[in-house]
Amino acid sequence: MENNITSAIELTAVPGFISRDALLEHWQGHRRLTRQVIDAFPEEKLFNYSIGGMRTFAQMSMEFIGLAAPGIHGIAFGNWTFDNPPLASNTPPPATKQEILDLWDMVTEEINKVWLQIPAQRFQENDRAFGQYEGPVNAALLYLIDNEIHHRGQGYVYLRSLGIEPPAFWNRY
Amino acid sequence: MENNITSAIELTAVPGFISRDALLEHWQGHRRLTRQVIDAFPEEKLFNYSIGGMRTFAQMSMEFIGLAAPGIHGIAFGNWTFDNPPLASNTPPPATKQEILDLWDMVTEEINKVWLQIPAQRFQENDRAFGQYEGPVNAALLYLIDNEIHHRGQGYVYLRSLGIEPPAFWNRY
Repeated sequence: MENNITSAIELTAVPGFISRDALLEHWQGHRRLTRQVIDAFPEEKLFNYSIGGMRTFAQMSMEFIGLAAPGIHGIAFGNWTFDNPPLASNTPPPATKQEILDLWDMVTEEINKVWLQIPAQRFQENDRAFGQYEGPVNAALLYLIDNEIHHRGQGYVYLRSLGIEPPAFWNRY
Repeated sequence: MENNITSAIELTAVPGFISRDALLEHWQGHRRLTRQVIDAFPEEKLFNYSIGGMRTFAQMSMEFIGLAAPGIHGIAFGNWTFDNPPLASNTPPPATKQEILDLWDMVTEEINKVWLQIPAQRFQENDRAFGQYEGPVNAALLYLIDNEIHHRGQGYVYLRSLGIEPPAFWNRY
């Protein structure tokens, strides 16, 4: 009986769009590329260069950090905050590129750790992301990733206009 | 026995990350935003404006069209081509914004039509996307979407530098 049920499940179950492992790798691959883009900026330009009245790439990078750190806790547990250190989407940049990269790497580890604790049904549950945005948790995760791709693309224009070749878009290593 | 197996499947099956309907809506929502960005460009600037030696937004838009049209056929059936009209990632832009938007809308309909024909297991199968990129089909679809977000973000910088307010990033309607 057990074996019959197992076989039936294997035959009937549709694998879905993407596995959890592949999804984590997709997110972290994008985050590795963003880290390369941060690092490609000359120290000074990271903090003072922009086009068309937009934000500096340091400010955008802090938004990525300040969304991902509370974000992974909200995605997993529904508490969309991060307190140590306090990080939110409008957290101002620290003084140096290295401090941004250190925060980045801390968040990378946090995501890897918390990812394993996300309950099985969680991605299709509804929640109020960051206490504000009602919708399924999968949409909140996609929004985090997409927002980073969007603004990182803007960072590419900053780099190109500075005469700096950005890392290849497909390079997620 | 049948009922027992069905119950076991219902109890055991994990819903996965995202439903097919939500995934199509995610993709088409991004495509609706990109269409708004194309339309936000003054006719002439769409075809002749760029920053840092990058492509015009008309060229980028043709890349989106020339990837999505063969892409949906490849995702569904494994034939990564589109012949009527011939469209590929390097297809040069037509003469007017309206012709780009008309191609855009044709591809929108094609995606909606073909989406329903994607076999259940297809997203986690391996294929050689566009005859070149080996990997799971879900990665090919994510690449299409991400590439559009990435370059569309660059279009936002073009618009801002022209003094034009782009559509809001969250506006997918």
